[in-house]
Parts: sequence; structure tokens; C-alpha cells
Amino acid sequence: MSSNFFKGISKVKYEGEGSTDPMAFRHYNPDEVLMGKRMEDHLRFSVAYWHSFAWPGGDPFGGQTFERPWFGDTMELAKLKADVAFEMFDILGAPYFCFHDVDVRPEGENFAENSRNLEEITDYFAEKMQQQGTKLLWGTANLFSNRRFMAGAATNPDPEVFAFSAATVKTCMDATHRLGGENYVLWGGREGYETLLNTDLKQEQDHMGRFLNMVVEYKHKIGFKGQILVEPKPQEPTKHQYDYDAATCYGFLQKYGLENEVKLNLEQGHAILAGHSFEHEIATAIALGVFGSIDMNRNDYQSGWDTDQFPNNVPEVALAYYYILKNGGLTSGGTNFDARLRRQSLDPQDLVAAHIGGMDICARGLKAAAAMLEDGGLDAALKERYAGWDTALGNSLLNGSLDEIAAQVENQNINPEPRSGRQEILENYVNRFV
Amino acid sequence: MSSNFFKGISKVKYEGEGSTDPMAFRHYNPDEVLMGKRMEDHLRFSVAYWHSFAWPGGDPFGGQTFERPWFGDTMELAKLKADVAFEMFDILGAPYFCFHDVDVRPEGENFAENSRNLEEITDYFAEKMQQQGTKLLWGTANLFSNRRFMAGAATNPDPEVFAFSAATVKTCMDATHRLGGENYVLWGGREGYETLLNTDLKQEQDHMGRFLNMVVEYKHKIGFKGQILVEPKPQEPTKHQYDYDAATCYGFLQKYGLENEVKLNLEQGHAILAGHSFEHEIATAIALGVFGSIDMNRNDYQSGWDTDQFPNNVPEVALAYYYILKNGGLTSGGTNFDARLRRQSLDPQDLVAAHIGGMDICARGLKAAAAMLEDGGLDAALKERYAGWDTALGNSLLNGSLDEIAAQVENQNINPEPRSGRQEILENYVNRFV
Amino acid sequence: MSSNFFKGISKVKYEGEGSTDPMAFRHYNPDEVLMGKRMEDHLRFSVAYWHSFAWPGGDPFGGQTFERPWFGDTMELAKLKADVAFEMFDILGAPYFCFHDVDVRPEGENFAENSRNLEEITDYFAEKMQQQGTKLLWGTANLFSNRRFMAGAATNPDPEVFAFSAATVKTCMDATHRLGGENYVLWGGREGYETLLNTDLKQEQDHMGRFLNMVVEYKHKIGFKGQILVEPKPQEPTKHQYDYDAATCYGFLQKYGLENEVKLNLEQGHAILAGHSFEHEIATAIALGVFGSIDMNRNDYQSGWDTDQFPNNVPEVALAYYYILKNGGLTSGGTNFDARLRRQSLDPQDLVAAHIGGMDICARGLKAAAAMLEDGGLDAALKERYAGWDTALGNSLLNGSLDEIAAQVENQNINPEPRSGRQEILENYVNRFV
Amino acid sequence: MSSNFFKGISKVKYEGEGSTDPMAFRHYNPDEVLMGKRMEDHLRFSVAYWHSFAWPGGDPFGGQTFERPWFGDTMELAKLKADVAFEMFDILGAPYFCFHDVDVRPEGENFAENSRNLEEITDYFAEKMQQQGTKLLWGTANLFSNRRFMAGAATNPDPEVFAFSAATVKTCMDATHRLGGENYVLWGGREGYETLLNTDLKQEQDHMGRFLNMVVEYKHKIGFKGQILVEPKPQEPTKHQYDYDAATCYGFLQKYGLENEVKLNLEQGHAILAGHSFEHEIATAIALGVFGSIDMNRNDYQSGWDTDQFPNNVPEVALAYYYILKNGGLTSGGTNFDARLRRQSLDPQDLVAAHIGGMDICARGLKAAAAMLEDGGLDAALKERYAGWDTALGNSLLNGSLDEIAAQVENQNINPEPRSGRQEILENYVNRFV
Ligand SMILES: [Co+2]
Ligand SMILES: [Co+2]
Ligand SMILES: [Co+2]
Ligand SMILES: [Co+2]
Ligand SMILES: [Co+2]
Ligand SMILES: [Co+2]
Ligand SMILES: [Co+2]
Ligand SMILES: [Co+2]
Repeated sequence: MSSNFFKGISKVKYEGEGSTDPMAFRHYNPDEVLMGKRMEDHLRFSVAYWHSFAWPGGDPFGGQTFERPWFGDTMELAKLKADVAFEMFDILGAPYFCFHDVDVRPEGENFAENSRNLEEITDYFAEKMQQQGTKLLWGTANLFSNRRFMAGAATNPDPEVFAFSAATVKTCMDATHRLGGENYVLWGGREGYETLLNTDLKQEQDHMGRFLNMVVEYKHKIGFKGQILVEPKPQEPTKHQYDYDAATCYGFLQKYGLENEVKLNLEQGHAILAGHSFEHEIATAIALGVFGSIDMNRNDYQSGWDTDQFPNNVPEVALAYYYILKNGGLTSGGTNFDARLRRQSLDPQDLVAAHIGGMDICARGLKAAAAMLEDGGLDAALKERYAGWDTALGNSLLNGSLDEIAAQVENQNINPEPRSGRQEILENYVNRFV
Repeated sequence: MSSNFFKGISKVKYEGEGSTDPMAFRHYNPDEVLMGKRMEDHLRFSVAYWHSFAWPGGDPFGGQTFERPWFGDTMELAKLKADVAFEMFDILGAPYFCFHDVDVRPEGENFAENSRNLEEITDYFAEKMQQQGTKLLWGTANLFSNRRFMAGAATNPDPEVFAFSAATVKTCMDATHRLGGENYVLWGGREGYETLLNTDLKQEQDHMGRFLNMVVEYKHKIGFKGQILVEPKPQEPTKHQYDYDAATCYGFLQKYGLENEVKLNLEQGHAILAGHSFEHEIATAIALGVFGSIDMNRNDYQSGWDTDQFPNNVPEVALAYYYILKNGGLTSGGTNFDARLRRQSLDPQDLVAAHIGGMDICARGLKAAAAMLEDGGLDAALKERYAGWDTALGNSLLNGSLDEIAAQVENQNINPEPRSGRQEILENYVNRFV
Repeated sequence: MSSNFFKGISKVKYEGEGSTDPMAFRHYNPDEVLMGKRMEDHLRFSVAYWHSFAWPGGDPFGGQTFERPWFGDTMELAKLKADVAFEMFDILGAPYFCFHDVDVRPEGENFAENSRNLEEITDYFAEKMQQQGTKLLWGTANLFSNRRFMAGAATNPDPEVFAFSAATVKTCMDATHRLGGENYVLWGGREGYETLLNTDLKQEQDHMGRFLNMVVEYKHKIGFKGQILVEPKPQEPTKHQYDYDAATCYGFLQKYGLENEVKLNLEQGHAILAGHSFEHEIATAIALGVFGSIDMNRNDYQSGWDTDQFPNNVPEVALAYYYILKNGGLTSGGTNFDARLRRQSLDPQDLVAAHIGGMDICARGLKAAAAMLEDGGLDAALKERYAGWDTALGNSLLNGSLDEIAAQVENQNINPEPRSGRQEILENYVNRFV
Repeated sequence: MSSNFFKGISKVKYEGEGSTDPMAFRHYNPDEVLMGKRMEDHLRFSVAYWHSFAWPGGDPFGGQTFERPWFGDTMELAKLKADVAFEMFDILGAPYFCFHDVDVRPEGENFAENSRNLEEITDYFAEKMQQQGTKLLWGTANLFSNRRFMAGAATNPDPEVFAFSAATVKTCMDATHRLGGENYVLWGGREGYETLLNTDLKQEQDHMGRFLNMVVEYKHKIGFKGQILVEPKPQEPTKHQYDYDAATCYGFLQKYGLENEVKLNLEQGHAILAGHSFEHEIATAIALGVFGSIDMNRNDYQSGWDTDQFPNNVPEVALAYYYILKNGGLTSGGTNFDARLRRQSLDPQDLVAAHIGGMDICARGLKAAAAMLEDGGLDAALKERYAGWDTALGNSLLNGSLDEIAAQVENQNINPEPRSGRQEILENYVNRFV
């Protein structure tokens, strides 16, 4: 039985580019096959529970703007929220969703009550997932909103908070495992510092490294087959977050022996906050062997905080998928919309339309990326540019020593002549496809 | 015999805080002892040859503003430049200097001529250093200005450029070794990319890792005892530089097995460009065990490029030295002014006064840092904040598992209560000293 | 009778630089005379009601951290809050405070109830101000927190919101007038846009211009003698705020005929968000004749949002006061701390200490500024640099025409030679005082 | 007779979307009619002489990369450069070009020689323009590269520089007039400051205001019918440029009585540096009545300096043209590519291809903008959103007073209910067209 929240909004259909219906897909056609795989299986879309169903529309200068019938802190309302959420998954044909514990359950008085509440709602989810076929892309624990986490979770100066956090993650991993989650994510929203003056960087990072090792150990203990993911972000809410960006996380994972156990969930908005393009973060993670999944939500380039907006720029999205497809696709990852409505977008229609727009943009980006890969122009250009390294000189250099090479340069009077990098021609090439 | 460039400017003296002479030190008193060490031995000041003697005053929108009698590309002018440089080292009482090959020698037609030119000027330097007692903090190779390096040096798609770069570094290491340099620095100004579209991230970084290993191997081969340093910078001239910041470099060093062989030369300006405070980069490198040396030149917070200005904010400088002193001081590193005059500062007096100002700011910062350390207030606050980790609970947690901890939290009803982070009180404390 | 909130904290005393008491002034000595005026009369410190007493400690990723006995939405709690606030004004010896309507009164069901509540609390304030001698620097209306203002107040597409806003400002001006406020401030937190796509820039700005004219008209009607101030900020919460910075506001005031009626309240944090230094905004407003007052709270240079931190960098604060003093001082303006505690600073002591630190930093800055002015070094340098404009050539040029000047340049072969800008020497000069 | 520089590159043809030829237009079809006007007449493309023919490929860390046969400082080479330039205008079918004096003439010893050189090359241009039909979009004086301008031109502390600048502008206006230029541009690259410490803001801006008035007076004197344009940029090369952005320029124009005589040349790259989107700057200038022309070159969002790249993002370009078309199109303005090749793009083909790409992107953007306008969806949404202002309430409010409105709000219990801003739906709408 329907909650009636989305009354008048029916299941979204693919109508093709010609459609002018704002509530139809113009590009996302789940069954269309690209490079031998269905579009749905390429994109693996996921809806984020928190932004769509738990966020009240506040910002630092104003409170709640959304008035949702399920707002409140009881189990009954939590179930109403779940009803509405699964209705939207169905309306969109979204194959996956993601959640934090606090998005889905009422807040308890203590850890035990939190756990019971989470278990009850997990059961409720399991039933709905079964009925509807929706899957869980990942679960996660919110270790940043409650005031007990104000100075960090795993990196809190107070070991009791470390303990509370570890216990909470255990219950969230259990819930994720029970629901067949394909990944488990850790975003260390407050694992960082507000001021160095009160912070022991080394001790905090050692605790965080140990914490993450415990997560990996527990995963193996319970036989969870999903991928453990860390989500980088440079700052906000903290002044500095330890999981700054992909390269920083890689250094951290290596230091604590985790580079083969943990991968990254990359978000466009966080890439931008860190001073990178999204494709940079993706290509970096791939080059380092730690690419996992994506949060496909952009930031505003003129705002200095995380705006978590739905994607709307095809050229940017196309480059992201280009590097992903070239690396074999999303495999166990997905395209999660860690995206929220603008707080003025009050209506149920806004919520559904925002996802339709995001899914369509991703579908266009994916199609462009696949076309570029199949055309092969970028790869050919790359191969030609680095061709020198397949010659005898190229091979020998990497096994040489500075003095041998110096002798060679002097004797052979090696005096390299620059060649065009052809950037604009390659950019034009990309614009043939996007 | 004097070059006459600094005519009318005599050796800078310490006159104390009361002095109003713009050409005297008011704070830098080399022989003053702090924490058991002379101020000169703490600060280990170094003058950067390039900015002070080789830079013509250009910017992207205008050409040369400085008119120096030694500008030109002959050996004779190179020696005149050296004469002036060593006169300034003497005027300032600067114990160290740093240089790139191209700063000090005329540009040759090819590698062999470059090498011969560098050797000749190295001999000239050796004599002057001997006479004057000036020491070399570090040498380095400029692998970014000549057009052959436009697409990178070690990471160039063309192996000939890799070879030319390796050969050049060999000669610069030889010169540094011959001159008793205490460090050798690599700043990868063009080791990065302009566009991902024409870049193979993985191959380029593998080449860079191999290159750096060659540097370390050659160091050991020739018995160079100095420290190998890498200087992080996030971008500029490239869109993205691989040595982005301290944390990124650490990940890179680990990946290529270099974390015990190579340390970092951190620059305030580069920290700011990377979205960090200087003390963040220093504290991070220390926490990771890779702190080496500093370039004490600031950026303008409102400009998005590297302004390389002389330091002038005591509170910022004091925090930098606080973390350095707490870690045992600069040891083999130094305080290098990788700083250039504003291009409107045309006069010889500007050049000397800028260094006087920088040295005085550093002296004030150092004194404040030493006083804070001796007072011990920050350390005491830190100890108290993390005291919980020295209890039985704290110790047991790090050896625990998620499920054990969860049981403990549930059974003991652990429900942590937040405690004040006291940020403003600590900031006020610092302001007692700066 | 005391609320007991600040128990154990007594009236803050000036103890001089030697003091190590974190709850004493080391620099702020209200009765000390600088340039013929008491320090208190120079600085005119004001406490912001909202941050100190109404803000619960939330951020975009977490809720309330502060637990204050007066939190809640009744008149009784509003009066308890007022009791605590005035106790703190007394503890600090703060001569002024500032408030928004919503900070001080319970939220009503409608405009009429809001008005009645505001009147009741205004009476309560009047009595306390009388008793204690605290004065009102400015009042203002919060036209951004309630969801009715989500799309703007004066610039809302809905005229009913314009009306509600105008009515609210009327009541806040009345309250300010009744309490002898020396200024009335308008900060247009949501007078801007989230997306141009749904925005009519011209119509919105015309409405805002009319609204501000109404404010000025009403001021004269009721005989309010205070200064009307607009507070620039570039963005946040909106993507773009119309009152971007001082120069933008000046253009706006001119367009709507208000440049002689309205001045600016400049905040350091907002200057930084707009890409300016604080002294830039102050000097610009002074040059344009619209300088009014300051909010002396900094932003973190590495964070892209408004952190509203207490000032803690003397060199920055000194330059701000230098330009203000040079222009004749604050006159009807003041030094308001639109500053909030970090959300981890939970204790009453943090709240008081943060203000002590801010006041001390300002006192140090003011003393340095006064000393620079009395020394006169900067002014002399300026006079010398522009001396050419006092010559015959300088005078004639401004009355000339392009062709006359061209003839003169050609005939006299005018070929100007650059002179040093002496930036580093001037920076060193400033560092003698800060 | 051809210079042979572009050998093998023939006149670029429109081949339609299906073309894979990198040297053909896929979207720019000059004769295609949109909204009743030929595409060429809408877009009014212009090539910038400086970047394409005078820039050697340097950046702050490296020198010349381009090796052009016309580099050098003789009249003969200047004419060879002109030959090549006009060949490229022809190859591209570019109807317009723009130039600075220093781009086109050899640098003389003094003003008189500069003038003679400029006149000679002006004659040479006149002949070529006549033959080829190429027109001049605008001329301008480079008052920032020569060291005499290091501290500003009109705002220089030295009146001789003011005079030299005025004389130079006179000659450039003469040349522009002689060549039938449709606009004359002033970009105040160094009209700003490096440090406030040596700057008299008010005096400098007064001089700049007077200078601009002289330009307007001279325009009328010689009967030049073109539009005078100022080009805003926030900084670089200066720390702060007085023509910061559109809103700042508008305030400046008003202050000096020029708001009806001078309009703005807006550049996307400069918008981004100022913290704005390009469409923001365009819409702002339109709302203020000072929109003139555009420089259609983007910045990299991750670089903090002006990268002057060719446009390559259709969604961004489409929004720019949307606001322009809605305002009646470019009229006397044009689409100038103030864009330079990346310094690794060494080949003649790169130069031509970069312009082809830029022109195609603009053509796509224009077509999308025209389609949106013709569809009318955005305008309809705007009309609906502001409809309240066409009611009796809306009309009455703007003529009311605060107290009348307050009475009305109280009596009628006006309590506005927010309505959705529909941002995502409007963004999706735009994506139907781009
Ligand atoms: Co985010
Ligand atoms: Co995310
Ligand atoms: Co630097
Ligand atoms: Co450096
Ligand atoms: Co603020
Ligand atoms: Co403020
Ligand atoms: Co530009
Ligand atoms: Co331009």
C-alpha cells in the first residue's frame, strides 16, 4: 500500500531524446547494451537515504525547510520513511541504495538501544528488498553527527568514543552483511582536526589505522564478501580531514598495511574541494590500484563547501566514466547519488526529478565514454606519445644508473627536441563525443 | 675586491629591538643562545641564488624590471654574479646558500657544455666558500625552464628527456658533493600534467619512482652524506604536480621503497597553494617521519599562484618553528629563503633589506617557539587531552576486535560525554608568546 | 541575582603583559590613553548576542553540542538568556552588544506575536542596560533563518515575504531606537540567488534598492539618529549575495541614491571569502566614503566558508586599525565580535576566554596602529611616492586631453624611468610595530 | 603570396556533426540562420593577435617554447607576423581580430618611435583588411608589459607614466579609428596594487576615473563611433586590480559619471578568478545596463591564475549565450578568443585546431541557447515565479513605507508559505538543449 507521498508520480519510463516530459528518462535506458553490458549493469545507480529522506533542508544560516510526514524519532516514523524510500527506488527503477545507521533508525538512549533499533529496521528493509528486488550498494555508520563524535570517532582523544565508534561500526557491518551489501564505506567526517594546537597527529592516525584494520579483520571473521571502502574528503566539517584525497588515502593505507584490503569511494564534490578534477581522483586511484566506487554528486565551483548537487555537466561526467570504463568498469562499485536537493526544492516532484536528471546525465556520459573507448582515439594518441619507451633506449634507461646515463648522453650528444602535446586537439576530439 | 653593487651597504649588525635602522637586525642575533644552541645554529639561514641573482623580475604579463650588471649568458658574467652573491652572503652573515645549475652557469649548446660550465663555476664557488666560510645548504638541477623539459623531466613521454635529466642531476649531485652540500633537493616543477587526456599517470609515476631511486643509488655510490630531499608543490607551472603535498609525497616514497632514504623540503607558499597551513605540512611530515628542511617564503592568501614572498607574519612563523623545535630542530635542514623581491623592488637596498626582514621575522618566531616549548603549556594540554589512552581501557582497545569492543560497550553501557577542546584558550596561550 | 552560569569567573581585570592568567587582560586597558582617547573609546567593543547565546553549536554535519540552561522557546528562557548575556557583558566590561530579533525573543506564530515578544524583551533589555550601563551598538532583523525567507527577504519572488520582511525590520528599528542603538544593520543573508535559472537579477535588486530606501525613510520619520549599515558578504548561505563586497555595495548604493545615507559594516571573514584582505575592504570603503563599522572576526584561510573565529593575528588586526585610525577612528561604529566559539569549546570559561583573547588582540593591534601613525613612516613614504602629482606636470595632466598630452610626451620626449616600490622595506617597517 | 607557415592546412569548411576531420567545423556554419540571423552575425568571432602570434610560450617557470619565424623586433618581422595572422583569419573564416599596439609593431626607443611604428603597421593592416574583408573588433594599448608600467599606467604614482600612457592610448585609438574598429578596450592589467602599504587608493582611482573620461572625450572629438569597453579582472598580475568584476566596474563608472559612455568586455576566465560564473558576470552587466562584449576563454577551475584556455564546455558556453541572446545579442560586441595555446602545443596545426574547437563549441552553445529561448521554458518559469509582483499587493508594496506595510501585515495576518524554487527541474530543462 502506498504512502501517498508521491501521488501522481508514476514509474519513470525511458522515452528517448525526443521526450519533453520532465518525469521521463531521455537517455537512461536500463536494458540498452553498451560494450556488451546493459546500461543498468554499467551504472549501478544508488540512491542515498540520508539526503533524500533524512535531511531537513537546513544550512548554517537557516533551519528546516522540508516538511516530511515521516520526520520524527520513532520506529513508526522510521518505517514510514522506509516505505516512502522504497517507493522512490521503485519509481526510479534504482537498483541500489545506501544508508547510515542514523538515517534509518530512531536514536536510542545508548548503544544497546541503537543496536536494537537498527536490527528492527534491518529486518524491515530485508523484507522490502526481497519484495522489490532493490539491493544495498553499501552501508555505513554515521560517526559525526551526534555530539559525542564532535572531536572524532576513531581519532577521538577519548578512548570511550573510540570504543563507542567501534561498537557502532560492528552493528552497521552486521546490518550491511545481513542485507547483502556489496560494499561497506567509512567516511571519516570528523577524523581530522579543528586546530593542530590540541591535536596529536601521529597518535590519532595510528588509532585510525588500527581501527581500519579492525574493520578488515571483522569483515573476514563474519565472511562479509563486500569491499571495504574509504571516502576521501579534504575538510568540512573539520578544518583538515585525514582522508584528504586519493593520494593521501593511498599513503595511509600503505602505512597501515591495508592497500590490498581497502579501496576508495570517490566523490566529485570532494575532489573539487581538494583542488582536483573528478577524473584526476579517479585516474589517480586507478593508477594506484585502489579505485572502488563513486559518489556522483558535484560541487559548485564558486562555493567553498560541499554542495552535494546532482550532476549536470555531461562533459565532466563523461570523462569520469571514460577512466572507469577503460579500467574495466565499476565491478563491485556503483554510481551513488550522495546528492541533496537544494533546500528550496520542497516538492516530492523535485526529489524524483532531481534523480531523473542525474541518471540521465550519467547515461549520456556513459554513452559518450563508451563511444570514445570504442573509437580508440585517445588511447592511440597516448600510445604514440609514449612510444619511445618501447624502444631500446627507453628500456635500458630504467635499468641504468645516473653515471651510466650521463656518459651515454654525453657520448651520443642526446639533445631532445620537444614535440607538441596536442592538448587542444585532444579536447576537440572529446567534444565530438560529449 | 668589491663588485660595487652594494655600495653604501655595510655588513648587517644586530642592534636590538630598539633600533630603527632598516638595515640592522632587531631580532636576529646569531650568537644568542636559545635552548642550549646558538640562534645561527638553530635557524641555519640560506639565500636562494635564483630569486636573488638570476630572476629578471618578469611575470606572466610583463618582462624584466631588474637591470643587473651581471645579466647575460657568459662565464664572465656568471662569475660577476657569483662575486655579488657572495658579497651579499657576507653582508647578511648568511651561513648557507642554495642553487640550481642554471642559476650559476651559462647555458651551453648541449649536455657536455653545460657540464663543463657547471664544473668551472663549481671551482669558482669552492674557492669563495673556502675564503668566506659560506656553506652550501643544497644544490639542485633546474629541470623545468628549458623548453626541452616542457612535458616533464623524469616523467617526460620522451625517454631522451629522461636521459638528459638523469645526466644533469648526476652533474648537479657531483657539484653539490664537491661543495660539501648538506642536502640535495629535487623539485619536480613539471613532473605532473597539463591535461590527463595526453597523460599516462601510472607510467609517469613509475618512471619518477625509478629516477628517484637512481638518485639515492648514486648518492651512496659517490659517498655523498647529505640528505636527499623532495619539495612538494601542488601545481604551477603544471595543472597538477605529482609531489602535491607532504602526505602525497609520503605515499609516493612508500610505493617506491624510498621512505627511509628521502625526506621533504617544505615551503610555506606551497603549503598554502595545496590548501594547508605551513604548520600542517611540517607537523604531517614529522608525524610520518619525513621532515627534512624548510623554504621559509610565504604566499599571499589572496593570490592563487606562488608569490614566493619573504615571510612577514610572526605568529605563522612561530608555529612553524614550534613543531620543528619540538621535533629536535632543523638538524641537517635549514631555513632557506626561496623568496623573491616584488618586481617593483628595484634597488640593491631592497634585496638586502628583504633578507634582513625575513631573518628578523624568523628570529622572532624562533624565540617565541622556544619560549612556548620551555613554558610547556601546549604540551601539558595535549598530554591531558589524550590521557585516557594511558589507562587500561585505552590500552586494551587497540588490541581488541570490533565484536569484543561492542560487547564491552553494551555490557558496561559506555556512553561518552564530550569535553571542551579549548581551542580559543590555546590560541590565547600562543598569543602570549608571539 | 546571578544566573550562576559563570560561577567562579569574576570580572576580567587588566593585569599587563606579564600576566599568565588566562582570564585576565594582558593588553586591553580601557582607560589607557592613545592619541588622546581612551582605549575603550577607540575600540568600542561589542558582543554578538547570536553566536554567544543563541547558537547551539551545530554545523552542516552535526547538531547541537552546547547545552545551555536557557535553550528553548519561551519568554522565561529568553529572559534567563538575557540575564546570562548581561552578566557576561559585565564580566568582560564590554560597553556594547548587538542582536537580531530572533536571538532575543521566542518565535511567535505570526508577525503580531513576534512583535509582542520583541517588545517585551526590549523592555527587559532597557532595564538591564540602564542598570549596567551597557549600550547597544546595533540591532538587526534576522531575515534568513526562518523557512519563509529561504528565497530571500526583500528580494523574494513572493511579495508577501517582502511585506513580512519590511514589517519585521520596522519592529527591529523601533526596538533599536528605543534602546538607543547607535547603528542599525542589514545583512542580506539570502538576498542573492541559488541559481540564475530561476532568478530575475534586475527585479530583485530593484526591490532591494527600494527596501533600503524605505529603511532610510523610516529612520528619518522616527528620528532615529543612528547610522544605517549594510554588511557585505559574497556568498554563503546563497551561491551569490548581492552585497558581495565593499565596492559592489558602493555601486548598489549609488544606483539607488543611497551613498550618503548608508555605510558599511565590514567583517574580516567576509573580506576573506570575497578574495580580499580585511584592510583592503576597510581602505576601499574609506576611499569611497562609506566606511561604517567592523565585525572583527576572522576566517580560516584554508576553509571556504565563514568560520567566524575570534581574531588572533596581531599583524592583520593592526593593519585594519591603522586605516581606521588614519581615517579618524570608529566614530559611530564599533568593534563587534561576530565570532563564535568552535563547537567543541563547551565550557562557560571558553566563552569568556575567547572574548578576552579577542579583546587583547584588538588592543595590541590598536596600540601598534597608533604607534605607526604617530611615527608617521608609512605616511611619509606615501607622500614621497606620489610627490610628482604636486608638481606642475602632475597638476596639468588631470586637466588635459589625450591629444595634448600626446603632443607633450612627443615634444618633451617623456620617457619615465621606474622607481622602486619598496614593498619589503615597508613591510619590515610595519613589523617594527606589531 | 603565402608565408608557408600553415602549409598543408586549407580553409576550414563546415562538414556537419558527422565529420571526424579535426580540421573541419562540425557545428559552426556561418550562413546557418538562427532566430532570423546568420550564425556568423550572431557570434562575431574574433582572433586575438597577442596570444596567437606574439606570445612565445613562457610561463613563470620556463621560457619560450614556440619557435616562430616572425619572432624578433624589426618591422620586417612585424609584417611577416601580419601576413601569417591574416592567413589564419582567412583559413578560419574569422570575421574579426583584436590587437594591442605592442603585438603588432616593433618596440621603439621612445614614444615617437612607437607611434611611427604603429602607424606603419596600421597602414599595412588597412590594406590587408581591405583585401580580405577582415574587420577589427577592437584595438587596445598594452600598458602593462614594459617595465615603465610596473606600478600602473593611469594609476602610476609617477605622472610621467600617466602622460606616457595617455599618449599611447591616443595613438591606439587613432589606429583603431583608422581601421574601422567597432570597439576600443581598456584592460587595466596593472591598475591596482601590489601592497596597500605604498598605495593611495583614492588618488589612484581618481586618476583612473579622469583617464577614462579623457578617453571618452577623445572618442567624441575624433568622431570614433565604436564602443568604449573596460575589461574587468580581479587580480593577476597585480594583487588587486581596480576593475575587479562587473559590479565593481559599474560602481566605478557611476562614480566618475561614465555609466552611459562605457560598457564592459567580460571574460570567462576573469569571472572565474573573481569567484563568479561567466553567466553571472554577463547577467549582472546586463541588469546594470553595461554589457558590451565577451572574451570567450575559460580558466581551469583548479588553477588559481588566468589560464586563458579555449572554451570547451558546451553547457557553460550555452548559458553565456542564453543571457546574451535574451538581451538582444552581441550588437556591437563580439566573441573574442583571448585564448592561448598550451605552451606544449607547438605546431601550426595546434593553433588552427584550437580555434576550430573554440568556434565549434560556441556554435553549439549558441544553437542550444537559441533553442531554449525559442522554447521559452525558462522564461515561463521566471514569469510564474515572480507573478505575485504583478498583483495589487506587489504593486502597492514598492510605494509603501515600513510602518504602513507593518500595519498591513499585522492586520491581514500575512504569513507567507514558501514555494519550491525548482532548481533541479530547471537544470534538467537546460540539459535537454545542451
Ligand atoms: Co559530499
Ligand atoms: Co560522499
Ligand atoms: Co614557491
Ligand atoms: Co621552494
Ligand atoms: Co561572518
Ligand atoms: Co558579520
Ligand atoms: Co584572461
Ligand atoms: Co581578456
